[in-house]
Parts: sequence; structure tokens; C-alpha cells
Amino acid sequence: MISVAIVGGTGYTGVELIRLLSSHPKVSVDLLTSRSHAGTRADQIFPSLRGISDIVFSDLGDDTLNALQKCDVVFFATPHGVAMQQAEALTQAGVKVIDLAADFRLQSLVEFEQWYQQQHACPELLKSAVYGIPEVSRDKLRNANLVGNPGCYPTTAILGLKPIIEAQNAKNTRLIDERIIVDAKSGVSGAGRQAKLALNYAETSDNFEAYGVTGHRHLPEIEQGINILLESQFTQRVRFLPHLVPMIRGMYSSIHLELTDAGKAVDWQQAFEDSYADEVFLDVLPTGIYPDTRSVRASNRLRIAVYQNNDRAELTVLVVQDNLVKGAAGQAVQNMNVMLGFDETLGLNFAPIVP
Amino acid sequence: MISVAIVGGTGYTGVELIRLLSSHPKVSVDLLTSRSHAGTRADQIFPSLRGISDIVFSDLGDDTLNALQKCDVVFFATPHGVAMQQAEALTQAGVKVIDLAADFRLQSLVEFEQWYQQQHACPELLKSAVYGIPEVSRDKLRNANLVGNPGCYPTTAILGLKPIIEAQNAKNTRLIDERIIVDAKSGVSGAGRQAKLALNYAETSDNFEAYGVTGHRHLPEIEQGINILLESQFTQRVRFLPHLVPMIRGMYSSIHLELTDAGKAVDWQQAFEDSYADEVFLDVLPTGIYPDTRSVRASNRLRIAVYQNNDRAELTVLVVQDNLVKGAAGQAVQNMNVMLGFDETLGLNFAPIVP
Amino acid sequence: MISVAIVGGTGYTGVELIRLLSSHPKVSVDLLTSRSHAGTRADQIFPSLRGISDIVFSDLGDDTLNALQKCDVVFFATPHGVAMQQAEALTQAGVKVIDLAADFRLQSLVEFEQWYQQQHACPELLKSAVYGIPEVSRDKLRNANLVGNPGCYPTTAILGLKPIIEAQNAKNTRLIDERIIVDAKSGVSGAGRQAKLALNYAETSDNFEAYGVTGHRHLPEIEQGINILLESQFTQRVRFLPHLVPMIRGMYSSIHLELTDAGKAVDWQQAFEDSYADEVFLDVLPTGIYPDTRSVRASNRLRIAVYQNNDRAELTVLVVQDNLVKGAAGQAVQNMNVMLGFDETLGLNFAPIVP
Amino acid sequence: MISVAIVGGTGYTGVELIRLLSSHPKVSVDLLTSRSHAGTRADQIFPSLRGISDIVFSDLGDDTLNALQKCDVVFFATPHGVAMQQAEALTQAGVKVIDLAADFRLQSLVEFEQWYQQQHACPELLKSAVYGIPEVSRDKLRNANLVGNPGCYPTTAILGLKPIIEAQNAKNTRLIDERIIVDAKSGVSGAGRQAKLALNYAETSDNFEAYGVTGHRHLPEIEQGINILLESQFTQRVRFLPHLVPMIRGMYSSIHLELTDAGKAVDWQQAFEDSYADEVFLDVLPTGIYPDTRSVRASNRLRIAVYQNNDRAELTVLVVQDNLVKGAAGQAVQNMNVMLGFDETLGLNFAPIVP
Repeated sequence: MISVAIVGGTGYTGVELIRLLSSHPKVSVDLLTSRSHAGTRADQIFPSLRGISDIVFSDLGDDTLNALQKCDVVFFATPHGVAMQQAEALTQAGVKVIDLAADFRLQSLVEFEQWYQQQHACPELLKSAVYGIPEVSRDKLRNANLVGNPGCYPTTAILGLKPIIEAQNAKNTRLIDERIIVDAKSGVSGAGRQAKLALNYAETSDNFEAYGVTGHRHLPEIEQGINILLESQFTQRVRFLPHLVPMIRGMYSSIHLELTDAGKAVDWQQAFEDSYADEVFLDVLPTGIYPDTRSVRASNRLRIAVYQNNDRAELTVLVVQDNLVKGAAGQAVQNMNVMLGFDETLGLNFAPIVP
Repeated sequence: MISVAIVGGTGYTGVELIRLLSSHPKVSVDLLTSRSHAGTRADQIFPSLRGISDIVFSDLGDDTLNALQKCDVVFFATPHGVAMQQAEALTQAGVKVIDLAADFRLQSLVEFEQWYQQQHACPELLKSAVYGIPEVSRDKLRNANLVGNPGCYPTTAILGLKPIIEAQNAKNTRLIDERIIVDAKSGVSGAGRQAKLALNYAETSDNFEAYGVTGHRHLPEIEQGINILLESQFTQRVRFLPHLVPMIRGMYSSIHLELTDAGKAVDWQQAFEDSYADEVFLDVLPTGIYPDTRSVRASNRLRIAVYQNNDRAELTVLVVQDNLVKGAAGQAVQNMNVMLGFDETLGLNFAPIVP
Repeated sequence: MISVAIVGGTGYTGVELIRLLSSHPKVSVDLLTSRSHAGTRADQIFPSLRGISDIVFSDLGDDTLNALQKCDVVFFATPHGVAMQQAEALTQAGVKVIDLAADFRLQSLVEFEQWYQQQHACPELLKSAVYGIPEVSRDKLRNANLVGNPGCYPTTAILGLKPIIEAQNAKNTRLIDERIIVDAKSGVSGAGRQAKLALNYAETSDNFEAYGVTGHRHLPEIEQGINILLESQFTQRVRFLPHLVPMIRGMYSSIHLELTDAGKAVDWQQAFEDSYADEVFLDVLPTGIYPDTRSVRASNRLRIAVYQNNDRAELTVLVVQDNLVKGAAGQAVQNMNVMLGFDETLGLNFAPIVP
Repeated sequence: MISVAIVGGTGYTGVELIRLLSSHPKVSVDLLTSRSHAGTRADQIFPSLRGISDIVFSDLGDDTLNALQKCDVVFFATPHGVAMQQAEALTQAGVKVIDLAADFRLQSLVEFEQWYQQQHACPELLKSAVYGIPEVSRDKLRNANLVGNPGCYPTTAILGLKPIIEAQNAKNTRLIDERIIVDAKSGVSGAGRQAKLALNYAETSDNFEAYGVTGHRHLPEIEQGINILLESQFTQRVRFLPHLVPMIRGMYSSIHLELTDAGKAVDWQQAFEDSYADEVFLDVLPTGIYPDTRSVRASNRLRIAVYQNNDRAELTVLVVQDNLVKGAAGQAVQNMNVMLGFDETLGLNFAPIVP
């Protein structure tokens, strides 16, 4: 069995990791650290885990690094700024590190420091870290020791745009206008497990609102993701507007694009189906089936629908995922599977929960 | 115009008071105090008030008492323990005081100190304070200077039991068994406007649970309310179990009673209808219409249905109200109307919001 | 008192009309017709109305038209295709008609028949009917006998775009790109009061999805609304994508626009504030306050925020309203007030319900 | 592989069976019948199944019975009255039959016909059918050919009462009063996958109500379940009151009991823990952890908490389960595992979904 540690398992991505890894046939969660809850069983904080896992939060103090170095894989389900403190020591000890926060998502130090308002502890690792969307960077991930697990919104935007950008690359002709609008919507769990008035049920339920209107940290990440895909001279710019939906899990991105004349000629349904034909977790819906977030609830699948309104030259790409699974913990496990040479679907190939 | 002050208007009962009083034809909210938000317009915290009220939170420091004494009526929409500090000075100055917290609900000092874990600042006022359910204590309220506005749960329990207790008094025969079970359910706004993990949407939504299982502060209040009504030798005891419902507003109390042979002979539908025939805000539903909380949403009405399963000698009383209106701010305004000799429905006779 | 009739009051706009008109000081609802519920009290179907209104649904058969002709104002809260059958006879009898369905929204017969798939019974009235957004067409409404009450989505889109279109007219220079994206979101009550699997709580809750992706009837209405405002040579085209939010009431439109160089120079916050300075029901939020749908819940207000991301030349207009009030019944009452020469806010100037 | 058929898979219990069986290591769903959806892939109706199952609904007409007889196990996820038509022919052919509807729940023909208002097609099978709660009737299930899968409410009530009834049996002394009150609450999925106005999101959300107040079909089933356990002279009677909670899944039963003096002396926490010590799916929560429905969401676990308020002689038993899993499809699979001699947890030992 592969020995796994989770640093900081008291948030939603943490408990989701515990849930997913508890049924993974090839790994064992041997260490779960938390300073604030040391000595407490995880199932005391999350009674849903009773009968599933008897792991106890531990705080090893100065010995933590030693203990982590004995594991094969370490997941950081911590706030931004924690993984960067230990990533170097761990990777040098041969441990594979997957950070679910933002420490290793942005390759540009300038952008990281601007958007996250903190200094980076190991900027020299930024370039070698792999931005972990397996369907984009599978080959790099096979040899990766350090993975920045993507933000939830960027995962939907990048996978929703990839077949288009690649088609544009292939034709070396502009198929879509420069301007990309990502009007995205997320369930409340995306804001994390925290005591915050704005997240109180009586404030959030029966309500809808945008947030981050003047700028959101996932914007540079989406732009970077697009730039990774771009191989042509055609740049793109993104307007990203996230909204909060009164639901627990689920993310829905409505991507609005304008087609050029060359773009209008493409059969986009076919292009998407071809692009993702071999991807188990990416599902291009056939014409006539609208995506909804519940169709991926609690699963690692991401579903996409494409609509081409020819008269108006509008291409609409609709993308759904579970923000805590494909948008966080599930993708982290998928990354781990790739890094370890496992079948990529191991521990992840379960059905969504409907209703 | 009657001059009104609200002390502590940043909670849900506070904003509901502002909403209700903003359309009351005979009062003017002249003072709104808050230490934490002094200088801030109320509509900055509650944008729903934009265009409705331009009042500003103020903190007058040592002059607060002076300012309050110039008002005709002062509402305390504060945590427990605040109203008791100023009630004496205000009532002595001729100001009518209505406390929406628990300082003047329990007439027994012992019970207050046991359940609220604090000393009472003016125990001598406890006996003269009126427990403010107009449909129970209208006459006393007319001359009251100090009113303890009831808790939300007790309002439903007491009004749901009153016709039964009174029938038992009138016949001087036991009609129901000693044991009363109040299985009650509340929307999340009942927990107040606070940053608390347990109230986070992702924790509360799509979930149901009991709380206060080993004891809840509203139990002694319900028992006191019943004792006020009791005029016979027949005592009652109450098992009170509250639950949290994933909805914003609304309270539903299911009261389970066992009838004696004498009780079985009563036509309880008729008894309830007769008992509340003259009450504008109390609605005894005809047979065949089940109560639901939305039928009173955002209104001051309380609806009751009675079911007599004869074979099983079971009487079920179902009571619904909006916990923030008839269960809090609406009842406070109703109390004010009675205290000031106004038409009791002034500012309160609006329709519930459905859907 | 003005005598009012409501044709078809068993839907959500119908019950909302009853609620609103029950507290209107100058009108009396004297007739409420329904074929399916004739003889039934409205408060039997909507127990929320108990104590508010004792009106009874009636079906007068052949005498219906006679009875309606004796009223001053007739509201049609019916499906599409009903109002057109009686509009002519009623207006000729001097009755003012307000249709909450789509019979008199589109001035183009071709568009009506294309989008609603039915023949129009009185196409000659289409041109004289006034499209009823008071803040756009107040003067026409004063003399109107027949009003097409707007769809909910178009109300948000048109009022969210009006200051921009008018600024463009005034400068006779293109300020925004031709392409307008209206990414809109609605609560479930917008789908009407109907038994439909797709609207079942277990299907709709904890879920988010787009619908009408390939075309929605509100698109031609939005385009017509924009064209009414256009006085320059600059045409616009609209991509409209509606989504369903798991909430009861509320509508949120995110309007994405690209600014020209001339457009970048405008202070849009100021432009919007100036444009709506005299409008009681239109609230331009100050910088820093995000709109949310609950801030207008159950009220006739519509709030707007404008964001100008200069670097990216993006103008984002966010608009919220209650789809059943400003988006339907409230606007209908507002239209009636204008048509009758009343104070426009009569019966409508109440506070939103928060929480 | 064991060959399994599901008759009628278009409801919520049907899709849940497909979900659960899709990951069961020892069975294969070979036949899925539906008259209304014959020829349609299941994942077209339930897109959540895309990538999970490619099974197609079939209608074999007269050959249906033949085809079912070739399977090892047949689940009926149909309305009441269907399984009884085929149970005899199937069991005689050696097929194991599990009915998720009510045809084989009640052993009394009189009660069945009274509560379900239809004649029974094979009353002679009622006595041999096993009422399938494994934790109650495991031994009988091992040899059963025909299982009536319990209703959701009865499962919580019977398992919540079993340790008490058995303790009373063992002591041959009355420990609880005769009267048992089951105040139960269910999520909306319990009402089934149907187009019904009362289940419309706008009717159900932000609302709470009781239903079946004058009688519910699960009452005789609860009483029968208690009678099966009773081995003493002490009879019990039940007041059962179900309520509808605005949540998709989840069931919460609050059981109110009054203790006799002998009952007060029992350590009920210990009694429950002892009683269920060997049950994987039954979890007696330690003191201090309240049950909530999300702690079992989408899982086959049922959690119980016991509270003994000594002064008041009140015993409160709180029981939670997922109504579609332990309350329906999960228990059916558990029953199948027992009937086939499999490890009882096969395919069912997964973690609940939190948040």
C-alpha cells in the first residue's frame, strides 16, 4: 500500500480527500495533521466518517516533517502559504507533493505575489511544479514530484476551452474572437468550511449574487491555463465573473464566445467529442441534453455541452463539475494516480448522487 | 407621531423591527443605537432598507440613556442582559420598554439565573413586567410599562395549548394527560444573525437535526406560560424538543397530547374556533387545511390546526408562525399597539408572502 | 374606489396581484375569475390569504365579458392567448386592460407568431398597446388603455441597458460594442405554479442549470426593448442565456458589455445615478455594495450595480429584482397607478423581506 | 456474476438501485424493464449514469416473465400492486424477489386491503414473505425467496425501538409507557419522482409542514414491526406523525417515550450500544454527538442517539437515515446480500457525502 499523509484535514477538501481515499484500493492514509485538532478523531468532527475511518488528527510539532518524509504522497489541504514551507524538503526526500491550495498553481512569481498578497517561500520551485489537470498535462504529471492542484473555476474554464484553442492552433486561423466571457456559478462549499456571516444559511439561502466582481484570484489561473494551450499567435483575454448559488456542491460555467467566419464553419459538437473521446472523466453531452450540476454531484466527472447559434455567431460552452471532487479533492487523487502510474480512475469511478 | 428607539438593530429582530415600523402610520423610529456600527446607515448593512429608511446607527456613549428617555417607546433588540441595565431608569422616566430578549420573560429569578447563567440587574422588576402575548395578557398589557417579549417557541406552545387549558379549567376536570410533548421545528434565522460554522449554508442546507435535546431555555418559559393559564388543580409537564429546519423563516410546533375520557368528548375544533373567534392574528384552520409555515411567511399571523384521533385518544395541535414576526418583532409591535391604546393591528395587517 | 378584476388568479402572478391589491388604498378587487376553481374561495387555495381577502373565484360563463366591462381595470394573469380574446371588447367599453402574459408585449405580429406558435386574435391592437415599463414609457402609459406587462427577464435587461443606450444616443458615438451578453438567472417561481417533474424539489434543489439555450421567448422582447430606446444608427445584438437558481423568488441579470474608447471615458456610475435619480423603484447601488436578490425580495424595487474594469474595457451591469413583483405583478400595479393618474408608488412602497 | 433484474427503474428507488448495483462486485444488472421508457437508455433519463451504466429500458411484453425467470434476483421498484402479479411465478421458478413497494410488507391481508385500497393478488404469499430488516430478521432472510422491503419511516422506528422492546422482553417488566410517539421528518425525495404541484420547488422550499395527520400507511407497518419484536404481555400503541422537510434526502425520527420506574433505572446508552455492537450499518452515537441527516447522506448507515432526561422520566430516541438508501434501495441490496449468502456489506460500505 502507498502511504499517504494529509496536512490539514479539517476543511471541506480535507474531509473529501479522506472520504475518497478511504475507498481507494492502493493507498492508506497514515497521517492526518492538524494543529488545532490534534488528538481528536476525524470522525468526531465529521460524524459522517464514523465506521469509515478511525484516523486521528495529530500534531507532531518538530517531528512533523520527519513523519511526512516517510510517506509516499503528501496532500496539502491547507490555506494558501502552508505547502510552500515544506514542499522543498519533501520533494528532496522523494515524497510526491500535491497542494490543493494555490502555492504552486501560478508559474509567475509576480502574479502569485500580486494576487495572494504574500511572499513565496520557494519561488524556484514554481517552474518545475506541474499544474495538475491530467487531461491537459498528463505526460508531465507522470514524472512530477510537485503538483499545484488547480482551482475549481479554472478547471471548468480550461477544459471548456481546450478543444477550441487546440482547433485554432491546428488551423492557425482565428476561430473565436479575442474576448472570452466566463460567467461562472458555484455552490457555497466552494467558500470553504468557515464561520462567516455572509455564509450563514439565513444570508445565503433563497438568494443569488455575484462576487469578486472587480477581480478574483482564479482569473490569472484561467489565463495561464489558456496560455499553456496556445500555440498560435492568437492571444485571448478573459472576463471572469463568479456567482454564489444557494446549493452545497456544484459548479457551472457558462462560457460565451464569438465565432469568426472560420469558426462558424466548424462542427463544434464533433470537435469536442473527438477531443475528449478517450477521457473517462470528461463527458461531452449529446445534443439535446442540458448539463446540470446534480448530474456530477459527489463524482469526479465533468460534463460539457456546446451550442452553436449560427445566425448570431455565438458559441456557448456549458461546463459542470462538483467543485469539491473534479474541482478539488477528486482531481488531486486523479493526479496522484497518474503520478504513481496507477490506473487513472482508481478510487474515483463511482456514480454521481441523484437525486 | 410616537417617538421610538431601537437599541441594537443589527440582528434579525432588529432589522425586522425597522421594516415593520417603517410602515407603521403612528410611530417614527428616531433613534437606533449600536456600539459596533455607530455612524453607519442601517441600509448599508441591510441594503434591503435602501429607499425605505435613512436612519443611522448611533452610539451616544454616556448620553444614550438621556436620549432614550426622550422617546416614548424603547425596544431592546439586544442579546440577553442588556435591557435589564436600563429598564429601571427608562420606566421611571415614563418610557415604555419592550425587551425582545429574555431579561423580563421569566418571573422567577431562580429560573432566570439557572437558565441564563447570569445575575439579574433588576430582579425587583421581574414581577411587574408583563409577559407579552396580547392574546393571553391583553388587559395587563394596556397598563404595562415593561414588557418581556416572548420567545418564539413559547408563543406557539402557549397559544396552541391555551384553549385546552382553559377548557380544562372551565370543566374542572382533567381533559388531557399530564404529559405534553412539544416537538418543535424552526427555520435558521431563529439562531440569529451570526458568524457560526454550524449555521454555514454548507452545514445546514439539505440537513435536519434536533438541538437542545438535554434542555433548552424556552422550556421554563413554556411551563410558566402554561402555569399562568392554569386555574385548576391539574398540573402539566412538558417535554420540549426543538429541531432546525433548512429554511430561513418559519416555526412549526407539533403538540402531542393524550385525552382523558372527558377530553375525548370535547369537540376540539369548535373549542379552538370559539376561543380565538375575535383574534385577528390567530387563525384556527378549518378541517382539511393543513398548516404550513409559508402560509404565515413574513406576517404576524399564527395558524393552528387541531386533530382528534378518537380511537387512539390522541389530540394533535399543529401551530405555525413566522419566528421573526409573531415570534419576535411583530409581536413586539403588537404589544406596543396595545400598550399605547392603538388599534392592535396597526402596521401589522399585511399579507404573508407566497410563494 | 376603483373597481378591479383579475382574470385567472390561480397562478403565482395572480396570487401576487391579490396580495398587492389587498393593501392598495384606492382599488377594490371585485371580480376574480377562474373556470377550474369557480365557487372556491381564493384563500382555500392560498391559505396565506386567510384574513386578508375573502374573494371567491367565479365563472360567469357568457356573462363574464359583461361583468368585466363593468370594472375600471382588468388584469389578465392568464396563460398566453387569453387576453387577446377580450382585449378589444374591453378597451372599447372603456376598461383599462393590463395583460401579464405575452399577448401584447411584442409589437411585431411576425415575431409573436414565430415565438409563441399561435395566431394573434387582434393584431390590429399590437401597435397601440403600450409595453409597460413605467421608467421607459411613462408618458405613453398615462394615456394607455391596453398594456402589455413585460416579461421578467426583459425588465432587468432593458432597465440595465437604458442609461447606456441613451448615453450612446446623446453622444451619437458608439460607446459599447455591438454585442450584448445577458447571462441571467431566475428563481423557480418564474416557471409558474405547475405540476412538472422538472420543477419537483428533488430535481431542482441543490442544482443549477441553464435552459432555453437555443432560444427563449424573452430574447425578441429584450431586442425590441433596446430598439425602442435606440435613436442612433448603432444597432445592438443580444445573446441571452437564462439559468434556473434553486430559490423561490429573485432574478439576477449579469450583463457583459465591451466598451469602445469613447465608452471607456464615461463615468458609468455617475451616468446610471443621474439617469435614475428620480426613480423611486430603481436603485443604483453605490460602489462597494454588491446587489443580491434578497435585497429586493417581495418588493417592487430593482437594484443595479455597474462595474467598469478599465484595463479590460469591460462594463458589467448587474441587475436584481423580484421576478414576481417588479418582474410581474408589482410592475402591473405600477402601470395601473400611472394609467389612472395615481401616485406611482401607491400600494407598492413596502420594504423587502430580509432575511 | 449473479444476474439481476430491476422492474420499473424510472423512480428514485430505481435509479438508486442502478447506482448501488453498478459498483457491486458480484452482481450484474442484466434487465431493466419499463413500459413507458422501453428502448431508452437509462442514462438518457438520468444523465448522472452516463459513463456508469449503458443499460437500456426494455419492454418484453409477454416475454417479460420468461426473461425475469432467467435472472437470479428480481427487484421491484414499482408502485404498489405490481410485484404481487409476478411474485408467485418468479419464486416458483427459483428466483429471489425483493419488492421495494408495499405488496409484501404487511402480513395481515385485512390491513393491506384497508390501507392500500386494493385487493391482493396472492394473499397466500403474505405469511411466507419476510419483512426485510436484516438487523431484525437476518436468519429468516437467509432462506427467504420473497422479501417485502420495509418502508422508510418504519425502518427508523423499528430499529429505534428494538433495543427497548427487547430489554422489556428480557426483564418481563414494563420499562416504557404504552404510548409511543414517533414524530418523523422526511426529505422530499420520499414522495417519489413525480410531477405534482405540492412538490414544486416554489411550494416546498423554505417551508415545513406535517402530512398524513389523520393516518399514514406506515403506521400499521410500524405497529407490525413492534409486534414482531414483542415477546411479553406488554402491548404498545403508536402515534405516528410525518412531516416534510425542504431537503432532498434524509429522514429523522424523534421518538418520545415515557419511562416507568424500572425503565428509569436502565442505562439506555449502554443498552443500545450493546444491542447493536455487531451491526456495521447501525451506529449508536456516543453521548454529546447529535445525529443529523447529512451524516448518513447517500449511505446505508443509520445512526441513533438516546437521551434520558431522568427528572422528567422521558426517553428520547433520535434516528437518522438516508430514506433512499437504508430506507429503500440500500436496504434492498443488503437484503439481497443476506439472501445470497454474501458479505452483508458488499457494495454498500461507502462513506456518506459531507458536505
